[in-house]
Parts: sequence; structure tokens; C-alpha cells
Amino acid sequence: MSGAHLVAVDWGTSSLRGALLDADGRVLAEQSHPRGILTVPPGGFPEVFESLFGEWMAPPGTRCLISGMAGSKQGWVEAPYCACPAGVAEVSARIRSIEPARIAIVPGLSDMHDGVPDVMRGEEVQIFGAMALTGLQDGLFVLPGTHNKWARVAQGRVSGFRTFMTGEFYALLSQHSILSRTIDATAPLDEAAFLEGVTQADNGQGLLHNAFGARTLSLFDRMRASELASYLSGVLIGEELRTQSVHAAGELVLIGTPALTQRYSLALRAAGIQARTLGAEATWAGLHALHTIDEAETP
Amino acid sequence: MSGAHLVAVDWGTSSLRGALLDADGRVLAEQSHPRGILTVPPGGFPEVFESLFGEWMAPPGTRCLISGMAGSKQGWVEAPYCACPAGVAEVSARIRSIEPARIAIVPGLSDMHDGVPDVMRGEEVQIFGAMALTGLQDGLFVLPGTHNKWARVAQGRVSGFRTFMTGEFYALLSQHSILSRTIDATAPLDEAAFLEGVTQADNGQGLLHNAFGARTLSLFDRMRASELASYLSGVLIGEELRTQSVHAAGELVLIGTPALTQRYSLALRAAGIQARTLGAEATWAGLHALHTIDEAETP
Repeated sequence: MSGAHLVAVDWGTSSLRGALLDADGRVLAEQSHPRGILTVPPGGFPEVFESLFGEWMAPPGTRCLISGMAGSKQGWVEAPYCACPAGVAEVSARIRSIEPARIAIVPGLSDMHDGVPDVMRGEEVQIFGAMALTGLQDGLFVLPGTHNKWARVAQGRVSGFRTFMTGEFYALLSQHSILSRTIDATAPLDEAAFLEGVTQADNGQGLLHNAFGARTLSLFDRMRASELASYLSGVLIGEELRTQSVHAAGELVLIGTPALTQRYSLALRAAGIQARTLGAEATWAGLHALHTIDEAETP
Repeated sequence: MSGAHLVAVDWGTSSLRGALLDADGRVLAEQSHPRGILTVPPGGFPEVFESLFGEWMAPPGTRCLISGMAGSKQGWVEAPYCACPAGVAEVSARIRSIEPARIAIVPGLSDMHDGVPDVMRGEEVQIFGAMALTGLQDGLFVLPGTHNKWARVAQGRVSGFRTFMTGEFYALLSQHSILSRTIDATAPLDEAAFLEGVTQADNGQGLLHNAFGARTLSLFDRMRASELASYLSGVLIGEELRTQSVHAAGELVLIGTPALTQRYSLALRAAGIQARTLGAEATWAGLHALHTIDEAETP
């Protein structure tokens, strides 16, 4: 069995990525599709899965492990959240099988702060993968995205985490707010304007005030439309960094697309902090790690 | 001339309010229309004005003073911002006449913080009116709205101010974000949930994190849809209060609609702070004050 392939899938809200891994976790093939769980009709998960991954699943002994929103209430099969602190062992023990399909779904993680819950689905796999790839058992793992996660890892387990709606705020402000009238959201990153936003975020006045600067800098012709998007991005990411004690973090690992991790690296470097950066490979390494421990425990 | 009436108009982005005032500033009649400057076609201001206020303007000697976005670049005639510190005298000196129409437009105020400008249009008139109505020459004047203003008044002049996009953030988050899926934005104010949000805002984690609580409290059935809107409102207003030194403010005056000033009063009271509250009357008192000083200086 351990020589068989693993179909690793990260099934998100709006899109889906899959990789075919060999027994050592090497990526043999990859695919991605705009078939997030919101595009799947009720009861339609088996059919969508078969159409995308049927060929990869054909060889006997091949198994599939799915992380992400496919395990949510609105997904294929609900895999209830695993409470922090949690590592590969705790999460692996709560993987939910879809019988007899050789498919299993990874649960997300939950945390609690002062009576307010927090959740992630899919990022825990990326963190486990990053731990496997870097060998780190302790550190701060940051996953930029629509809903960014800041997770603290201690002795090989996620001890706690917090979500930041940074990506969604950026989309809302640049597309739907008064700022959208003057911002050119398609402009490439302007590092100087971005870092000016990061600096402003630390002025003690908060995001509700600092975001308005992207309006007035334009009104007074102090910044071009092509710079405003970067400035706003800096204000948002700076606000996020402001609230987290990055200096006391120890090792800091960024996991995400290059376009996003680049911005966090820039902002962190301006604060004198170096971070390691990982991309999609973290997901595959995480699913491989969960699969391996799961296989080892299955007679 | 001083016995003549004044047509006082607050011409905003999406709506417009007008009042007919006698020589002593008493309100004889009021009207409001969904005819904000965004609804006026290019060159269409004289016609819209005549259709709404022609009758009030008919008596000889009647004058009109307009505040708000009608004085912006996109408005009727641009009345350039008056820089802080500025009081009734400074603003009055920069009122822009529309000849020969007996109509004049009040400029807004500008301020500057670390190279980032800030602006208001219309709120300065409400502040002047509140000063006239309360007799206060010093204090913190807070004007909730789409773009809230916090203005410091010293010795009868606005010494400086900051804008907070609180109202717009609330609309974006409750209507366009992931939170909109579970929030019942039409529910009446739930004071307990609102104050819980205000308390959470002070946890040092910032708005990007705390807003997500309105999602997870719902996911974990810890708050009802009818409470979530109040919670989110509390998180936003609490974030605003957090950044302002309200305890050191001296007198605090809230100016706005009852629905909004009620929330700020609640949040401030929870922090042990009493505030005076004023509504639309502040606008008319402010335009009357500017008109009176303008008349006195006109031969």
C-alpha cells in the first residue's frame, strides 16, 4: 500500500487545486480549476471529483486526501474542527473517510480567544507541510490570503492562531468603497508607496482613519492612481503587523502565493525581520505528511 | 436686509436638506430630497436648485447659503478648503458667491497629519452651529456618519480633525463581505451585543481580526443573526473610540442622527463618559452664524 500514489486536493471556496504524489511525496502532476465548493450543486461532489480526478484515482491502492472548505458544513462531508493545540497526530486522528471511495477529508482547526472562536480550513495542512519542509517545530507561521492566518507553532503543534480579514478588506475597499473611484487596482506593486502605507499604519490612529488617506492623498494630488493601491495595501498589511508581536516571534515563515508573500516580506524587512517563504509545495507536503502518519496507523 | 430670510442648504453626496430661517435663525420650514450632487447632471445645479428652492428665494432680499459637497470639485462651484485652525471668521471670509443669484457656498476644512491631508465639507458648519447652540468654545466634536469626523475645538476654532470611515466600513462589511451571509442588518440595535463588540475592539488585535468574530460567533452558534449587526457595529465604533483620547477630551459633543449618536452615547457611557447630543439643528444654526457674520461684514 505504501508504494501507491496519493491524490492531494486543496478544495477551497472558489477554486480547487490537486496534485498527484508518489509514495515519497514527490509531485508527479498538478491541476487547478475554478470549481470551488460554491460552484458545486447539492449532492454534486462525487461527480465533480470523478470528472477531475477519476483518472488519477484509477490505479488500485491510490488514495485521496482533501483539505479546505470541502470539509465545511457547505462542503462534501463535514469534518468537525479540531481544537488547538493540534499537530499532525491530532488532525490525522480526526480525518473523515468517505466510504468506499478511498477518499478522506482533513478537518480544520479551531481556537478560542476571550469567548470568540476562530477557525481555519486548509491552512493547517500548509503549516504541517511547512514544518516538514523546513524542519521547524517552533515559530510563527503567516498565511496571507482573503482571510489571513497567523499561527503560533510550539513543539510541533499549532498552539493557537488568529484570522485577519486583510485580503477581503483590500478587495472591498479597492472595489466597492469611495476609494475605488481613484485607485488603479490593476497597477503593479509600487514599493515606495506600499512602504509609506506600512509606516502610516503605525501612527496609532487605526485602520478606519488611515484607509481614508488613500482618498485624500489623491484629492490633493499627492499620490498617483497607480500608487494608491500599493499605499492601501501597505496600510492594511501594516495594520496587521502592528497588532502582532513579530519581533518576539522567533522564526517567521510566510506561506502563500508569491504576489502576497512578497508584500509581507517587504513590510517585515522594513521592520528588520527576515522570513522564510513557501508556496503551494507546503500544501502537498502537508497532505503527504498526514497521509503517511495515517497509513502507518492503518493496519 | 438683516430682516430677510435665509435659505440654508446642506447639499451632500447622495441627499440634500434645506431650511427656511428667519432673521433670528428660527426654522420656518424644512425639506429634504434624494437629490445629492451625484444625481445632478453636469451644469444642472441652477435648475435643480430653482425647482426645489425657487419659491423660498422669491421674496426680495432672501439669500441662500449652501454647505457640503456642492462646494467640491464635482459640485456646483468649487469652494477651496480652508486650512485648520479655522473658525467662523476664517470660513466666512472664504465663502464663494454665485452671482447674481444671491446664493453662496461655504468652503470645507482641510487638515494635515504627517504629510497625509484630511478633509471635511459640511461638518464644519455643524460644528459652528453646535458651538453657537452650546456656547462651547473648546471641546471634542464628534460627527458620526459615512465618514465620521472627530474635530478638536480650541478657543472657538477647529484646531484639527480626523476622518474615520466607520459608516462606510459598516456598510461594506454588512452588505458585501462574507459577514453579510449571516448578519441580519435590518435587526434593531441589541445593546448587549453592541457593547460586547465595543469591549472586543479594545483587545489589541485590531479591526482586521475583530471583524472576523462576527463570522465565527455565528458559525459556532454563539450569537444570533439579529445580534451580529449590533456586534459588528460595536467592534467598529469601539475601534474608533480606542484610537481617540476621549478621556482627556474635556467636553464631548455628538452631532448627527439619533440612530447614530445613540450608539456613540452608549459606547462612551460604558467608558464613563457623558456627551452632549445635537441633531440637524446644528446645521441650521451654523449656516445662520456664518450668514450673520457675513452680513455684518457686507456693506
